[in-house]
Amino acid sequence: MQVRNPRTGEFDYIIKPLSREAVVQKAQTLRKKQHNWLAKDVLKRIAVVQDWKEMLVKCKDELIEALYLDTGRKVESFMEVEEVLEGIDRWCDSAFHYFHASEETFVAHNSFLEIDTEVSPYPLVGIISPCSFPFLLPMREVIPALLVGSAVLVKPSELTPRFMKAVAHSLHFVPELNEVLSFVEGDAQTGEALCETCDYICFTGSTKVAKEVANRTANHFIPAQINATKKGVAIVTESADWETVTSAILWGSAFNAGQSCASIEAIYVHRNVFPLFLSRLVGKANLLNLAYPTLDSGQIGPIISEVAAHNLNEQLADAIRKGAKIIAGSSAVEQLGGGNYVRPTILTNVDHRMKLMTEPTFGPLLPVMTFQDIKDPINWVNTYSPSCDVALFGNAEEEMVEIAKKLNVSSVSLNDVGLNIMIGDANFMNFSPAGISDLHLGVAIFRKFLKKKALITNRASGKPTWWYD
Amino acid sequence: MQVRNPRTGEFDYIIKPLSREAVVQKAQTLRKKQHNWLAKDVLKRIAVVQDWKEMLVKCKDELIEALYLDTGRKVESFMEVEEVLEGIDRWCDSAFHYFHASEETFVAHNSFLEIDTEVSPYPLVGIISPCSFPFLLPMREVIPALLVGSAVLVKPSELTPRFMKAVAHSLHFVPELNEVLSFVEGDAQTGEALCETCDYICFTGSTKVAKEVANRTANHFIPAQINATKKGVAIVTESADWETVTSAILWGSAFNAGQSCASIEAIYVHRNVFPLFLSRLVGKANLLNLAYPTLDSGQIGPIISEVAAHNLNEQLADAIRKGAKIIAGSSAVEQLGGGNYVRPTILTNVDHRMKLMTEPTFGPLLPVMTFQDIKDPINWVNTYSPSCDVALFGNAEEEMVEIAKKLNVSSVSLNDVGLNIMIGDANFMNFSPAGISDLHLGVAIFRKFLKKKALITNRASGKPTWWYD
Repeated sequence: MQVRNPRTGEFDYIIKPLSREAVVQKAQTLRKKQHNWLAKDVLKRIAVVQDWKEMLVKCKDELIEALYLDTGRKVESFMEVEEVLEGIDRWCDSAFHYFHASEETFVAHNSFLEIDTEVSPYPLVGIISPCSFPFLLPMREVIPALLVGSAVLVKPSELTPRFMKAVAHSLHFVPELNEVLSFVEGDAQTGEALCETCDYICFTGSTKVAKEVANRTANHFIPAQINATKKGVAIVTESADWETVTSAILWGSAFNAGQSCASIEAIYVHRNVFPLFLSRLVGKANLLNLAYPTLDSGQIGPIISEVAAHNLNEQLADAIRKGAKIIAGSSAVEQLGGGNYVRPTILTNVDHRMKLMTEPTFGPLLPVMTFQDIKDPINWVNTYSPSCDVALFGNAEEEMVEIAKKLNVSSVSLNDVGLNIMIGDANFMNFSPAGISDLHLGVAIFRKFLKKKALITNRASGKPTWWYD
Repeated sequence: MQVRNPRTGEFDYIIKPLSREAVVQKAQTLRKKQHNWLAKDVLKRIAVVQDWKEMLVKCKDELIEALYLDTGRKVESFMEVEEVLEGIDRWCDSAFHYFHASEETFVAHNSFLEIDTEVSPYPLVGIISPCSFPFLLPMREVIPALLVGSAVLVKPSELTPRFMKAVAHSLHFVPELNEVLSFVEGDAQTGEALCETCDYICFTGSTKVAKEVANRTANHFIPAQINATKKGVAIVTESADWETVTSAILWGSAFNAGQSCASIEAIYVHRNVFPLFLSRLVGKANLLNLAYPTLDSGQIGPIISEVAAHNLNEQLADAIRKGAKIIAGSSAVEQLGGGNYVRPTILTNVDHRMKLMTEPTFGPLLPVMTFQDIKDPINWVNTYSPSCDVALFGNAEEEMVEIAKKLNVSSVSLNDVGLNIMIGDANFMNFSPAGISDLHLGVAIFRKFLKKKALITNRASGKPTWWYD
């Protein structure tokens, strides 16, 4: 299978997607080795993971170079590798505390029942990860799963497979980990096989594929943590400091060329600050440059996925057809040297008939709508982007808290963007729109990989509770 | 739609299944009223639920009479109503404590981030419940969901709809509750509509329907708690007191004519105790009688569902064809006065080629296999009935704990049957084979109905965390 280079458009890399049979075999091998891995003390597992971190640090240049080729962007490649290296320490530290704290205990309503609960990790965790942050997104599941004692099988996106060589290289020097962790090349069929073979699935990606994963795992009663792309929204109230706000929102939209599940893709601004807001946003947006012809030419890298580029063109055309005006950026994806690029593109005269106001965008489009009554953006968010993450701007904190309460969303960042990314490695919609708290925060990052079992004894009498003589 | 009477085989009752449109409309009405319900203090909600309990006590005879007609059995009808009435007090008491305890808090790894988490109930919880305990099984979800502030829409099995009249009667006197709780008549299509319309689904029933519900809810990203039938297993070690054990296992198999997700449907006995075990089991089984011709004629009521009766015949024929011997009971479902009855039926010469050793049975079949080495039944359970509930019998407690550790199951009742039913109202496989602990124990009975939301503030500086100038 040929892989496209997002900067040149050339198909310059080849992967061999694992067949269904190969996945089954790989799973068998990993499960076999998982027994030994689980038998180790958590301190030993932490030590092995730290060994791997050391090797990752040694392979860092190789890894970052590969991520350049996979994604065509620079700063974000540094950042995702740094974030993983820091994350490893954090997860190891949390694991140490988690395993040394007493687990939640369960009390029966029948006081004569004694209940011992025991937890054991799902033997094999499968991870299906997207192209937006090829290394970071799987790793935030890989490390906690390893630390609880699971074996892990990762299928990164077929669009960004190059970094796997550096990972394999680093793993080669940590044989104990290499037996229980495998990154494999694969396509949709490989992903399907994972959904039927592993004991727990973590998926991050588009809503379309998310539904397929949800269906397939449901069919096999395999628990799945589904993180589907959603639409980040910014709300700018009258009291907001538009100078700060525009800087933050621009970053929230244009970082990683908008290819992030946390990126801001719709903006509601109070009409009294709209003129100033818009002029500053346009001014700052025009200062950003495309990372073309070189990686260092600017901040905005190429759109990695051709499907995403196509979708961006569709949303732009749809909006323009329905009356949107482009104030900065361009009316279509720009093809430069074979790559697809999108400048931060600011649109006004937009409304909710337009796809770019209601569907995930995954690119740096900034459609701006105005409001007079705060009830309107609250209603719009709850109607068109429920369960999203909102960046809310305004000076009167009490008022902001009141607004936040009325938003039916996963999280609200106050006078900031993307704070949800920073808490507990979480910024996605779970399978249930249960928000960030359930699977990515605190001990949940470990607990989700653990099955529970109860041993129950009736201490009231020597007899069974019920019987037929 | 005509409804069969399980004792007479006559179609003597009619329901009007709610159409998809009617479900959508009903959901809308319930959601509208949910705002007021949620606005009440939890103490007020508890008081209203207690009012309902009083009315249920007044309608108790009517309710039990209807359950006789729905299920054709007597003792179990008393028991399920009593269990609900006791449960209401217990759930109200837990809710009081739950809402007055501090919720789990989340700590960011970045200490300058302040995180306020807020919970809110899913506005509308949908419950799809089976025929085995028509009143008890929905109610263990209904009451906790109401107490957290959700509205609730229940679709009981179309096989056992008669009890709903008594429920409606009791609700009629509690108007505040009547607005936010609705039991509706329905078929598969009604259930499908619930899966697409509610905000959270609780399903209990067969594996086949469980997969449909899992798929349909997954397709709409609606969180679902799926409790699919599983196969209860008993393991009898050499040191077990076979006199006690046989009484308990017989009850575990024959209670409610085996129509329980917790019923024992496969038995592994150490070969040294096998002869004594078998003779006592047969002796006791032969003392049980069918509840025919009258409700009081015996302990074993009819098989409610014709599909289940058909499945029992298939499992019996399959086992006999493959060499099983029937030591007590009968080789096929008995048709008496239009009803389908199965005596406690003990089979030997059974093995895992036979469906009755590996698939859910949902009837009082007791296939008995022997073992010499305890490794074998451990292996069999882990292979053929993972995630089930095991009743483990033996005198040496330490040894039993060791065995329990090796079983890949949800729960182990030690020297007893069905203790899992008694802890936290839980005895089913969750959608994930995560066991009993996740959704039915302790605070989880409330927490599962709550969505979480985080309000995040960066207290480190007046500036956003990231920005483009």
